[in-house]
Amino acid sequence: MKDKTFLMIPGPTPVPERVLLEIAKHPMGHRSSEFSKILESVYSDLKYVFQTSNDVLVYTSSGTGAMDAALSNLINPGDKVLSLVIGNFGQRWAEIAKALGADVETIEVEPGNAINPLVLKERLDKDVNKEIKIVTLTQNETSTGVTNDVKTIVSYIKEHGALSVVDGVTSLGAMTCKMDEWGIDVLISGSQKGFMIPPGLAFLAASERAWAVHKECQRPDFYFNWSTNRKSVLENSTAFTPAVSLISGLKVALEMMKEEGLENIINRHTKIAKALRKALRAINLKLFVEDDSIASTSITAILPPENVSVPDIRKVLKNDYDIVVANGQNQLKDKIFRMGTLGFVSERDAITAVGALEATLHKLGHKFELGKGVATLIEEMNK
Amino acid sequence: MKDKTFLMIPGPTPVPERVLLEIAKHPMGHRSSEFSKILESVYSDLKYVFQTSNDVLVYTSSGTGAMDAALSNLINPGDKVLSLVIGNFGQRWAEIAKALGADVETIEVEPGNAINPLVLKERLDKDVNKEIKIVTLTQNETSTGVTNDVKTIVSYIKEHGALSVVDGVTSLGAMTCKMDEWGIDVLISGSQKGFMIPPGLAFLAASERAWAVHKECQRPDFYFNWSTNRKSVLENSTAFTPAVSLISGLKVALEMMKEEGLENIINRHTKIAKALRKALRAINLKLFVEDDSIASTSITAILPPENVSVPDIRKVLKNDYDIVVANGQNQLKDKIFRMGTLGFVSERDAITAVGALEATLHKLGHKFELGKGVATLIEEMNK
Repeated sequence: MKDKTFLMIPGPTPVPERVLLEIAKHPMGHRSSEFSKILESVYSDLKYVFQTSNDVLVYTSSGTGAMDAALSNLINPGDKVLSLVIGNFGQRWAEIAKALGADVETIEVEPGNAINPLVLKERLDKDVNKEIKIVTLTQNETSTGVTNDVKTIVSYIKEHGALSVVDGVTSLGAMTCKMDEWGIDVLISGSQKGFMIPPGLAFLAASERAWAVHKECQRPDFYFNWSTNRKSVLENSTAFTPAVSLISGLKVALEMMKEEGLENIINRHTKIAKALRKALRAINLKLFVEDDSIASTSITAILPPENVSVPDIRKVLKNDYDIVVANGQNQLKDKIFRMGTLGFVSERDAITAVGALEATLHKLGHKFELGKGVATLIEEMNK
Repeated sequence: MKDKTFLMIPGPTPVPERVLLEIAKHPMGHRSSEFSKILESVYSDLKYVFQTSNDVLVYTSSGTGAMDAALSNLINPGDKVLSLVIGNFGQRWAEIAKALGADVETIEVEPGNAINPLVLKERLDKDVNKEIKIVTLTQNETSTGVTNDVKTIVSYIKEHGALSVVDGVTSLGAMTCKMDEWGIDVLISGSQKGFMIPPGLAFLAASERAWAVHKECQRPDFYFNWSTNRKSVLENSTAFTPAVSLISGLKVALEMMKEEGLENIINRHTKIAKALRKALRAINLKLFVEDDSIASTSITAILPPENVSVPDIRKVLKNDYDIVVANGQNQLKDKIFRMGTLGFVSERDAITAVGALEATLHKLGHKFELGKGVATLIEEMNK
């Protein structure tokens, strides 16, 4: 059966019909007053999701584009950057900083773990000459399903005086992230995640401290230039022709997010992910992230049972049940598979996923009490 | 009456229903084998439109992103760049080069004119020490509707030894542009133009000479990096999460372009633009570009009649006939209006546009023989 594919990868995530229908419309002129009204609404609602009073810039790019935009508007060659790396996306910050000529130091942990804030604090305390200009980190590491304690980490960075630059790509709209209250200096995210629209847009907000550092940036990238892009935000416009269809879709998606309410959205993610973890354990699966306190609410990484391979699990789930889950990345390829519960995901979707996974593992010879996963999930959701 | 808006601006251009329906589908995973097949088809068909055997990189960005991608992968600070400026988009090349720290010289002409290739030749002949590394130019200047003689210009640049970097945003698919045959070194374009899909994607191809210069680029931008992006092209993949919906739409649009045939597409644009110019003159309008030999086949800039204002023309066309045409940009604002006949545009659309413009001007008190525009257009199209 075709056209029933259900994505449970960390992105793209499912898109509501209401949004798809908006995207399907004939594109409008990006300099029209109608489109300006759409932008006005989008710029305002993005502040709500970012929990900030700072302007939120909208780039037509992937999330990596916004990461590039973050650092290429701050770094001058030779600047010292400290990158907290707990997986591939944390590593990407370090790579971008290096490409910009920064002097990059990393604090790395084994995949599956989070940054210990005290280790960071110790490093920052040693930096008595305040050489470290920027600290980069990831709120939710998509490659492993681990969440960093951004609130505590950012408080230490603030104490030191460096700028905190945070990847919120798979965290915004799935877990608490209070940009202004926590004092995050630069926060970025992407459209195809918690924002429930297809890939193609990325978002960036910067604190006044970050704007001051930007002013000293000698050669900010032209396309991603913060100043020219903010000038357009203030005029309810865009610096360059944006992906108008996706922005029209985003307007609708943001209205849906406001209707549900940010707190409710985060509670929904938290509840589903927690129940999913319990259900998976109930069918004798091991989770890659054992420690519940650092486990992601948007991505769950799972170890395959003994004698069952990740490719086989993904193949049966895809072919027989039209569900797509993600493999591990790089050194974790075929060692884990990852299930996204991000964005437009309901309790019913979690039931579907666990049910289909039970059917898959049953076919592949894994031993467990059939039905136990779904039962556990339902019980947990109704607590 | 709502939902009947017809865009006759230089972009976004009209999108075929077939493409819109493709874009409206639930997004697929960007690392799936299904999407890889779509990319394979897109990468191959883009070469056909670019008339090149070079790999065509696909960026999720606006056309300006691809301009940034072109120069930020070639320029080191202090490099000498010669920018041929015949309007705002030619100027943009110079701005990007400056932002990258290049030493930028310009050859500028008054808006409405093209570059005289011999003036360029003279400048290049004087550069006996071969200090000029890059020459930037625009095939079709969107702000004025003027087309440069890219073939001749590029032949002089080649003779000199500099790299030619050409903006083909509103020219590809509307006028002849033979990348390989003419020896263009870098050619870029955007999705919302001749490619008949909404904005959000941009394309770039580079010659082997340009690739060699790229290797010497000290700090290519991370997101737009040619090398990492080409590596993914060769694997029928993308370096970062692309706008999958737009790429699925692009596949369909490119198939439509291949069905019609590039030569037929260009003939269609040429014929419509030529007939439009004749029709506009027949209703006593003056064209901003008098010289037919440099007039664009995708954008026609028109002077308002005496005692009729550009805002009034745009307002009546929009309110009474649901047709959107563009105002002039910057110093040409309210001095000209611009009609796009780019991409998914038929003879019927030209009849519609001229007819509606006649009705508009008639209402606004302009004196001309009513019906003469449409009659002239029809006669010209049937010659």
